[in-house]
Amino acid sequence: MADTLISVDLSESPHTNENIHNRWHPDIPINVWVEPGDDFKIETYDWTGGQIKNNDDASDVRDVELEQVHYLSGPIGVKGAEPGDLLVVEILDIGAKEDMLWGFNGFFSKQNGGGFLTEHFPEAQKSIWDIDGMFTKSRHVPGVKYAGLIHPGLIGCLPDRKMLDMWNTRETELFNTDPNRTPPLAALPNTQSAHMGAMKGEERDAAAAEAARTVPPREHGGNCDIKDLSRGSKIYFPVYVDGAGLSMGDLHFSQGDGEITFCGAIEMAGWLHLKVSLIKEGVSKYGVKNPIFKPSPITPSYNDYLIFEGISVDEQGEQHYLDVHIAYRQACLNAIEYLKKFGYSGAQAYAILGTAPVQGHISGVVDIPNACATLWLPNDIFEWDMMPNADGPTKYLDGSIDVPLAPDL
Amino acid sequence: MADTLISVDLSESPHTNENIHNRWHPDIPINVWVEPGDDFKIETYDWTGGQIKNNDDASDVRDVELEQVHYLSGPIGVKGAEPGDLLVVEILDIGAKEDMLWGFNGFFSKQNGGGFLTEHFPEAQKSIWDIDGMFTKSRHVPGVKYAGLIHPGLIGCLPDRKMLDMWNTRETELFNTDPNRTPPLAALPNTQSAHMGAMKGEERDAAAAEAARTVPPREHGGNCDIKDLSRGSKIYFPVYVDGAGLSMGDLHFSQGDGEITFCGAIEMAGWLHLKVSLIKEGVSKYGVKNPIFKPSPITPSYNDYLIFEGISVDEQGEQHYLDVHIAYRQACLNAIEYLKKFGYSGAQAYAILGTAPVQGHISGVVDIPNACATLWLPNDIFEWDMMPNADGPTKYLDGSIDVPLAPDL
Amino acid sequence: MADTLISVDLSESPHTNENIHNRWHPDIPINVWVEPGDDFKIETYDWTGGQIKNNDDASDVRDVELEQVHYLSGPIGVKGAEPGDLLVVEILDIGAKEDMLWGFNGFFSKQNGGGFLTEHFPEAQKSIWDIDGMFTKSRHVPGVKYAGLIHPGLIGCLPDRKMLDMWNTRETELFNTDPNRTPPLAALPNTQSAHMGAMKGEERDAAAAEAARTVPPREHGGNCDIKDLSRGSKIYFPVYVDGAGLSMGDLHFSQGDGEITFCGAIEMAGWLHLKVSLIKEGVSKYGVKNPIFKPSPITPSYNDYLIFEGISVDEQGEQHYLDVHIAYRQACLNAIEYLKKFGYSGAQAYAILGTAPVQGHISGVVDIPNACATLWLPNDIFEWDMMPNADGPTKYLDGSIDVPLAPDL
Amino acid sequence: MADTLISVDLSESPHTNENIHNRWHPDIPINVWVEPGDDFKIETYDWTGGQIKNNDDASDVRDVELEQVHYLSGPIGVKGAEPGDLLVVEILDIGAKEDMLWGFNGFFSKQNGGGFLTEHFPEAQKSIWDIDGMFTKSRHVPGVKYAGLIHPGLIGCLPDRKMLDMWNTRETELFNTDPNRTPPLAALPNTQSAHMGAMKGEERDAAAAEAARTVPPREHGGNCDIKDLSRGSKIYFPVYVDGAGLSMGDLHFSQGDGEITFCGAIEMAGWLHLKVSLIKEGVSKYGVKNPIFKPSPITPSYNDYLIFEGISVDEQGEQHYLDVHIAYRQACLNAIEYLKKFGYSGAQAYAILGTAPVQGHISGVVDIPNACATLWLPNDIFEWDMMPNADGPTKYLDGSIDVPLAPDL
Repeated sequence: MADTLISVDLSESPHTNENIHNRWHPDIPINVWVEPGDDFKIETYDWTGGQIKNNDDASDVRDVELEQVHYLSGPIGVKGAEPGDLLVVEILDIGAKEDMLWGFNGFFSKQNGGGFLTEHFPEAQKSIWDIDGMFTKSRHVPGVKYAGLIHPGLIGCLPDRKMLDMWNTRETELFNTDPNRTPPLAALPNTQSAHMGAMKGEERDAAAAEAARTVPPREHGGNCDIKDLSRGSKIYFPVYVDGAGLSMGDLHFSQGDGEITFCGAIEMAGWLHLKVSLIKEGVSKYGVKNPIFKPSPITPSYNDYLIFEGISVDEQGEQHYLDVHIAYRQACLNAIEYLKKFGYSGAQAYAILGTAPVQGHISGVVDIPNACATLWLPNDIFEWDMMPNADGPTKYLDGSIDVPLAPDL
Repeated sequence: MADTLISVDLSESPHTNENIHNRWHPDIPINVWVEPGDDFKIETYDWTGGQIKNNDDASDVRDVELEQVHYLSGPIGVKGAEPGDLLVVEILDIGAKEDMLWGFNGFFSKQNGGGFLTEHFPEAQKSIWDIDGMFTKSRHVPGVKYAGLIHPGLIGCLPDRKMLDMWNTRETELFNTDPNRTPPLAALPNTQSAHMGAMKGEERDAAAAEAARTVPPREHGGNCDIKDLSRGSKIYFPVYVDGAGLSMGDLHFSQGDGEITFCGAIEMAGWLHLKVSLIKEGVSKYGVKNPIFKPSPITPSYNDYLIFEGISVDEQGEQHYLDVHIAYRQACLNAIEYLKKFGYSGAQAYAILGTAPVQGHISGVVDIPNACATLWLPNDIFEWDMMPNADGPTKYLDGSIDVPLAPDL
Repeated sequence: MADTLISVDLSESPHTNENIHNRWHPDIPINVWVEPGDDFKIETYDWTGGQIKNNDDASDVRDVELEQVHYLSGPIGVKGAEPGDLLVVEILDIGAKEDMLWGFNGFFSKQNGGGFLTEHFPEAQKSIWDIDGMFTKSRHVPGVKYAGLIHPGLIGCLPDRKMLDMWNTRETELFNTDPNRTPPLAALPNTQSAHMGAMKGEERDAAAAEAARTVPPREHGGNCDIKDLSRGSKIYFPVYVDGAGLSMGDLHFSQGDGEITFCGAIEMAGWLHLKVSLIKEGVSKYGVKNPIFKPSPITPSYNDYLIFEGISVDEQGEQHYLDVHIAYRQACLNAIEYLKKFGYSGAQAYAILGTAPVQGHISGVVDIPNACATLWLPNDIFEWDMMPNADGPTKYLDGSIDVPLAPDL
Repeated sequence: MADTLISVDLSESPHTNENIHNRWHPDIPINVWVEPGDDFKIETYDWTGGQIKNNDDASDVRDVELEQVHYLSGPIGVKGAEPGDLLVVEILDIGAKEDMLWGFNGFFSKQNGGGFLTEHFPEAQKSIWDIDGMFTKSRHVPGVKYAGLIHPGLIGCLPDRKMLDMWNTRETELFNTDPNRTPPLAALPNTQSAHMGAMKGEERDAAAAEAARTVPPREHGGNCDIKDLSRGSKIYFPVYVDGAGLSMGDLHFSQGDGEITFCGAIEMAGWLHLKVSLIKEGVSKYGVKNPIFKPSPITPSYNDYLIFEGISVDEQGEQHYLDVHIAYRQACLNAIEYLKKFGYSGAQAYAILGTAPVQGHISGVVDIPNACATLWLPNDIFEWDMMPNADGPTKYLDGSIDVPLAPDL
């Protein structure tokens, strides 16, 4: 039976736990060590560290303190790992904490960063999703049930000093092109609520002031939010520091490609059962810059989709040049309009696209000036028939249930 | 046995055929009519109308006249179709013309528009792919063989006047922001080599001067290059003119998401067996803006992938804001570097990404400032084991074979 | 473009064609030769040689002359093939003859051999299935449509003398245990309607008198009726005679596991596009007795099933010992009873089980005294929802349409 | 969080637990009740109640007392369930007990009932399989690793008196046709080691004397050993007694179709998370005799198979009439011979066929006199390439490791 190397107590603040951190910095101490070939378990908080509650009031999503995210468990040292190696991580299993068999999905207020469709859903909303074994459903979004494709939204190894400096330099440069923008162009280092693991005192304060935020995905992986990095997958991470320093968190029970709702997927606390090994000098042997991975042989076999297209012409009719971001937004909006015809509110439809195992494909990126993106909606998640037919759509919902909203203050 | 309503003779110029056109305009006459419920066959030229030959010389790709593309077969009228209806098209089957059992893939010269990775592959190159029943392989790219996911790269209904005007207005506005750019920001109307179907004389000249080019995907579908719109799929197209006016062409034997090589997928001449029906007033009933579709139940069952990540930091290390285009380019470049470790040239690797049933996913689009895109490379297309292991990669190719290149003149 | 090495004219009797035979014998001359590495096309009759017509009268099924079956195209010689080699056959593609875009399914009269459920369906019945590209549907069985998993029901190499003698000996011994049984226990050699390819005169008559019937599957493959031997699959056949002598026929557009209706699947005339190669001495290298094969990467992706169980207790309640045959029959009967609740006639339900890509699994064979077999019915072939729910089944059919029956005379 | 309604203590004999029983009888008291709509957890012993140990000595398999099997957890009462209803059981999740993260596979001695290939493997052998999250591997069978398709081998509702009598009558009749046979033709009621749940005293003794053994699958489901009844599946069970009385056990981490090794699959102790509901009068509404079920959307996506055929000619060359049992045995033997060419011992190959997610298909059952069965071996379970090629097989194993054997005493 695999040992649990890092435990979390959901009734305690993550800041009381030295094996948790919420920033990336090469000097965060590795307290937990394993050997190549070992398998072990790691527990994690949800990404907000418990700020969101299982109730019907979205004010916690509205008022969330984003400087706290993401609470990661680690870093875990792997003996013998050196810079330039590939750390091979097998996700043998993942699950929810027995004392938190639910997850949340939310839209942030535009004032707090919003989401992919923030112009259309500018205020905070929240849905709660119950975890029933392999499945989830929500009292706020009737008529859908998904098999979970559970995955860590965030996983990767500690950066070295050089990489940290590069991150800070390039993100600061971007930020400075429009420093007063809301939301900002980048989440720069910020000591507020920084949790530097076991670091203490002045060393901790100095590191916190320059430590990278966990928000974006970067070369080491990090917050990639790849829904297919699920249990059974095998990931090859570049190693930058001795011992590798693997950390992870932000577990998702299920998510659509793009994690468009931002807050986020179906967010949960939980545990991972991992096995690690090394490919010495694997970075140069295989020419690896970002992590590569092999997906799981065990995945939901949804293969009956309804596919929506979007092109890079925006909501105002303006033409953009090969912009996949805008094209995917249009595909999402097209899917939402479609779902509304069956009785879903826009917010419910948005929540479905954010939480279901929706695929987002980059279908065409060379046919000037329009990129084409497609959104693949699995039919089998619905308890109703949602395909088009000559009679037109059936309104299955009467509008009496919706996703709770907390107006901006 | 279904009738072939439009035939093409590959030994003749498409300009001799009144059922072919290469521009979008509401006034292109519908010569061929069917009833809802009918099934029928349509033959098509390859997208260039035969400009590219089955040889080992890429000069035809370098010298291609892009004003000619894409040669479409149609428009086909569906009796009773009216603006606002959805035209339901089932692709019952697709195949290659018996007298052209091969296809081509190319990279355009940067001077001629280039492709997704034109900065890395700036000169014209070409590979030839033999079609062996359900499979394809290339003498220029050893060690790979794909099952075909044959599809029309381009299919859609005639626009009405209002839609045409909108297209021209918005694309001209974009073009005018940088009118001297090479490649241009948009492919504006251009009478050179325009083929307006059965239109003749002054009417034809006037229409050609304002007709939309077929290059980009637009609201009606058009050049979507969606690899999954394959035989067995069912598509719901918005109708804008009486009779619908369905046209199609640009058949691909196989393509990766994004059609990154631009010229293009594995391009072929061929035929489609279609069945059409109508959903009256379907556009408003289902809230449809762009076509929607249900993919085929018959698709290659590749499900063992190696997945590459890319983030929106460009090749120069510059940080971009949630730019999926750049993120996908990085994922492609990462995959190419990986394949090179096994002995493939960069051009061969690029050709594989453009032609194999590679998936391109929009994995994360909200984690500022980095978008995360993933490229899914199916392992089963290789005759060799391409997975990472502790011993490092095996060089399977000795470099003696490569994709022919024609230097810029 | 692959050459068609054997052509058939459906308007002519197969007995006029020297490249057709309907018996297995080592001396049937090989008239058509290919080299390892070649690809080529072969046309075939339907298994009955055209005895069954596209109409609504089942008398042709009732009156079929079974001594004629199966008309095979071949034998094809592969240069260099020797006894003990493995002949590798890739099925690059298969299709229907353009002049026969339909197939038939029938139940034989019990007097003529019956089928798997002959006690329940003792009289001749017939349904006609139209081939619409990749799909099929029947005017006699409403509400179902399948993607074709086209395959040769019968394919294999010529036996040598020793193998032929072994077949005749063992089958005669079985026959003799109950020589007057109807249907007989085995189909022994019979000169009536024997077609020995290019053999003539006395030699032909002598060979016909001892040639093996094509009815059962045997060591060489033969009439295996394996629905998954479809286009894209790769088969390894033992070679017994110089040149291998590959023959094939009995094409099926679609079939359920077991081919329970016997006449049979959706039977069709058509063509195959094949590629052959050799593994020298492969029989001993790999310990091969019967053919082995790798299924196609291109198959219908039906994966939503309703599964029926059967155990080895027969319709009269008698207990049998680990008898999978009886267990599968019970699973089939259970599925038929279920389908009848939705309005299908028993004959329609039986026809569905015989023609759809139904899976038949040997689920348990050790739990004395009951074998357990399961029948997997794909939900996606139905245009209606066929799953159980609390409200009970909906009767979708009113009984006005049924499978034509021809009473015994 | 779901309540655990039945717990088991693996360190205690199952005979100390009143919520366990190992016989079927209508009078076994229902101690645990749930409401329709409830979800709950149930723990189970392994099928032998802990007789087999995690070591390298097969004597426990040789000496197993089969009168004890199968230890079932239950019966569970569902309020409102009445005879004629369908009890709908969703398997929300299944897992191993944390204190027993391993399973066993064995072949019984022929003297103790043997297995499907007992003539070929007549003595007791045992392999141990470690459970690593979603995967399993064995120190006795190198080179294979499977994703688990965990399922209860045995599940069903209590019979009523009439059904019990029918079972006993028909099985006794069969037994009596050859009462001295070893192994016997049926496992008749036997009080030795009978565990009647909470029954006590004379009532218990009387019931034990007539209670049905749990060995075979029967109308209620029972020991079906269907590998696809895995987590995420939904089963519809006929109800015979008030409250239904659902019991289950015999969990398998992974199993091949047929459970050919008999002892059995990868046998484990564990827990199930279930949800129940009712379809009132569902038995008649849907014409249900044996349970029906919908498989899980979450299953291992192995789809690259090597397929072996077998026909109903036995090892001595004797011809049998459409005997699927013999045909499947030949397919199994063919697969074993093939695996031996790569270095596996026969016992290792047999263990793979019994434990891996191997499919067994009834391919042809009408082509007299030969049935054709196919065994589908997933390639992806091997760490080596096991496909045939022109060079012949590679011997990956040196024979130094084998499956422990305990000779008959």
